[in-house]
Amino acid sequence: MRNMTEADLTEVVLERYASTPDPRLRTLLHTLIRHLHAFVREVRLTEDEWMTGIQFLTRTGQMCDDKRQEMILLSDNLGISALVNMVSAGVPEGTTESTVIGPFYVPDSPQREWGESVLLREGADRELIIHGRVLGPQGEAVPGASIEIWQTDANGMYDIQDRSQPEHNLRGWYRARKDGTFLLKTIRPTSYPIPTDGPVGELLQLSARHPFRPAHIHAMVSAPGYRQLTTHLFDSEDEYLDSDVVFAVKSSLIRTFERNESAEAAAQWGVKAPFWELRNDFVLSRDE
Amino acid sequence: MRNMTEADLTEVVLERYASTPDPRLRTLLHTLIRHLHAFVREVRLTEDEWMTGIQFLTRTGQMCDDKRQEMILLSDNLGISALVNMVSAGVPEGTTESTVIGPFYVPDSPQREWGESVLLREGADRELIIHGRVLGPQGEAVPGASIEIWQTDANGMYDIQDRSQPEHNLRGWYRARKDGTFLLKTIRPTSYPIPTDGPVGELLQLSARHPFRPAHIHAMVSAPGYRQLTTHLFDSEDEYLDSDVVFAVKSSLIRTFERNESAEAAAQWGVKAPFWELRNDFVLSRDE
Repeated sequence: MRNMTEADLTEVVLERYASTPDPRLRTLLHTLIRHLHAFVREVRLTEDEWMTGIQFLTRTGQMCDDKRQEMILLSDNLGISALVNMVSAGVPEGTTESTVIGPFYVPDSPQREWGESVLLREGADRELIIHGRVLGPQGEAVPGASIEIWQTDANGMYDIQDRSQPEHNLRGWYRARKDGTFLLKTIRPTSYPIPTDGPVGELLQLSARHPFRPAHIHAMVSAPGYRQLTTHLFDSEDEYLDSDVVFAVKSSLIRTFERNESAEAAAQWGVKAPFWELRNDFVLSRDE
Repeated sequence: MRNMTEADLTEVVLERYASTPDPRLRTLLHTLIRHLHAFVREVRLTEDEWMTGIQFLTRTGQMCDDKRQEMILLSDNLGISALVNMVSAGVPEGTTESTVIGPFYVPDSPQREWGESVLLREGADRELIIHGRVLGPQGEAVPGASIEIWQTDANGMYDIQDRSQPEHNLRGWYRARKDGTFLLKTIRPTSYPIPTDGPVGELLQLSARHPFRPAHIHAMVSAPGYRQLTTHLFDSEDEYLDSDVVFAVKSSLIRTFERNESAEAAAQWGVKAPFWELRNDFVLSRDE
């Protein structure tokens, strides 16, 4: 077929991918091709605009290395990551909601002992104690679950963005006890701008959007027999809760960190008063 | 807005990009976001599939350097480049049709003299003479037009893919004379596979598609006052004309290279008999 209309061309391309052996991949490719072609036809994309897009995506890929994932950041900023999380979540009522993983997760972070702080530098203020239980959908204790957390330091940067921080600062995983209880120690998180020195920063500038995420702690909770939970704990007092640049806030994930001025309580937890405290359970759904 | 449905989320994302100052960019972003979100909802994209896609696009960007453009190759293989060419072409009846530029164009290739060969190695066979005129839409001569061509060598590789070839082998631009005439010397092109050692090669393999392009010579023709033409000259005898992996064939661009066994004609053109000959005009549209 050589003299094609626009609609013909899309049909020819779909037909050419019809031999894809894996049926799910075939569906993904067909649906993606139909939507991308519809986009091109609808906006009458020019060759200059196409080339700008090609170069933008190329630079986005090239910005990635073992410490930076600009392609995830792009997906996050177009609301795609939040939507994928929404369509694929499907957790039962009563279990903890998930949200996006974001570009700053690092595998193989170190284990922290019961109540050990993930803050690896001196001069902690705004210390935060998080204690609670990992539970299953029937309220049963999940023994020995892994609770991994990561967050920025007070300057709004993750360890992998900031050479002045020790490796694995504010990053690590804890093992829950047999009764599902855990005790984490960190600092109260802060709102921060996503990295704006790459293609995604250009996009934000061109679209006159602010780059801020509301203060949050990332958490990934897993245990055999349960579905892995990737979520955030958001600070209820943050000014960006309604305009998160990556669209990841869910009401059920907003937490109030309680201020505690008791020197006695501080001594009990091994922190300085005043400190912040959160009682929080993670409720997992069963793996199917 | 924190407790969103899938449709809510898309509206929130669109609203957040509504402040984009440039109206064309706003339209492009809004339309792209609507289609990408529709894709995610329609296929119920899983987080694992999303991550596979993120990694695929990241590797595609990282495969690019000054000699390789895998992101263009991806666009070509999804039929997007051909569709962009189609929707943005809009040339008047009677002018030469355009087609995709592809990933192998190199700016600043050297000028070739009247009748000089772009083949920079010894041992030419299948020599090809192309002569004709660059014309405007009313059939007027376009004096001094630039005709740039690029193609693979007999092994199916472009100079930038193949270290054994001299730099700029089978690549260069000619200046048409005042009467629009030109004389190019090259070799008859061959069909070839696109590079399959990167992410696009994986895609072809997963979708059980062959990687071949029908034999062609790329041409880019430009002159002040006229719209730049990016096109191909396809070989009418090629077996892949109906299954070009990048969907770029147009009937009007198929040419028959005439075999010429005359020693006298060969001497006249400065080639060895037998050689191949093509009489071809490029008809440009006016720049608007």
